[in-house]
Amino acid sequence: MSELDGLAERLREFVRVRDWGRFHTPKNLVMALAGEAGELLAEFQWLTPAESSTVMDDPEAAARVRAEIGDVLLYLVRLADALDIDLLEAAHAKLDESDRRYTVEEYRGSARKAPPLT
Amino acid sequence: MSELDGLAERLREFVRVRDWGRFHTPKNLVMALAGEAGELLAEFQWLTPAESSTVMDDPEAAARVRAEIGDVLLYLVRLADALDIDLLEAAHAKLDESDRRYTVEEYRGSARKAPPLT
Amino acid sequence: MSELDGLAERLREFVRVRDWGRFHTPKNLVMALAGEAGELLAEFQWLTPAESSTVMDDPEAAARVRAEIGDVLLYLVRLADALDIDLLEAAHAKLDESDRRYTVEEYRGSARKAPPLT
Amino acid sequence: MSELDGLAERLREFVRVRDWGRFHTPKNLVMALAGEAGELLAEFQWLTPAESSTVMDDPEAAARVRAEIGDVLLYLVRLADALDIDLLEAAHAKLDESDRRYTVEEYRGSARKAPPLT
Repeated sequence: MSELDGLAERLREFVRVRDWGRFHTPKNLVMALAGEAGELLAEFQWLTPAESSTVMDDPEAAARVRAEIGDVLLYLVRLADALDIDLLEAAHAKLDESDRRYTVEEYRGSARKAPPLT
Repeated sequence: MSELDGLAERLREFVRVRDWGRFHTPKNLVMALAGEAGELLAEFQWLTPAESSTVMDDPEAAARVRAEIGDVLLYLVRLADALDIDLLEAAHAKLDESDRRYTVEEYRGSARKAPPLT
Repeated sequence: MSELDGLAERLREFVRVRDWGRFHTPKNLVMALAGEAGELLAEFQWLTPAESSTVMDDPEAAARVRAEIGDVLLYLVRLADALDIDLLEAAHAKLDESDRRYTVEEYRGSARKAPPLT
Repeated sequence: MSELDGLAERLREFVRVRDWGRFHTPKNLVMALAGEAGELLAEFQWLTPAESSTVMDDPEAAARVRAEIGDVLLYLVRLADALDIDLLEAAHAKLDESDRRYTVEEYRGSARKAPPLT
């Protein structure tokens, strides 16, 4: 079993034994995911870009950031499981598309302001 | 190599060949991640909870949701890589904590309004 | 002076006397705004739509929701001020556009899943 | 009638004539608000803090930012109306609290990383 499948299964069991399944509609899980992303934002909002690159040097900030990032993955895995989406496949498919769309020739070293991953 | 490490490496190369590294500060990546979570919200905002559970039955909506979920994972993996955080470990650590905190005895079948995963 | 201008001026003074202006770049303010929107999400994420309509009946939840909504307006006013945007004018202009685009004839009683305001 | 009340009334009528009231539960409106905040993030995510301060110099970016900021206010006003919250009062109350909490003596010129408005 893959590592993400293992996490999905662990979450499914966590929810099952607590009988919390009725709360985990995709709508609610999307809200929880976005809420956790908002908490991540809060950790970075007053930092300069340079400070954001060294945030893990501060043990307290590092623990908070690690926890928030863990939260985002938990809800993302739970959401994908609820929708029966293969998370990793979805990400690779999106990156395939970006690879074709943002050709190296055209975009390399580009000064464009908004280079997307996807 | 694990599947998430594989994706992280693929992203690193994607960014490297386009010389986009300077855009990928943790601050910017967190913004991009939250922006993608916002796009996911938009897919679900007018759906009832029941409709949200069958969103994948509509091929067009399914394709959009799959793409948005892929985007979220891409930026999450990229962010964790930029911060040198082990994403899977962070998620399991957070779930360990929730497992201890929300004991089955106390929380099972709870009518509490806000059962957290984490 | 209009009520929003009054709030903008009060915020400007609040920031000035604390010498916090350097933190209030539009980029940072947008992050703070989205972070506060994320906290609002967290208040509603496990509620059913019907429960969300009576959230203000619970004094503790009501106080939290009122505070979060206040926070969102504060950052929104501060952001608009930093960008020299007339907030009210921007909203009315957007609503004018929606009024033209979503004609009553075509959209009334529509079962479309995603009726936008804007 | 105050300017925000005027906007709330206009929105109420906009929704009424289209019979969209059933979509406008507080839960859905919070999602829409956060989704719009996510679109604002996307406008700023790749900009440096300095570039974010001059974003309105580019007419196309300015139009997009103005529209997104208008959207956020529209949903915020609509949400506050649905919950019967006085938006302006909520914001001033929150700022009163911050005024007491972040005293000028203690916080002026502070190098603290996360100066909150609220």
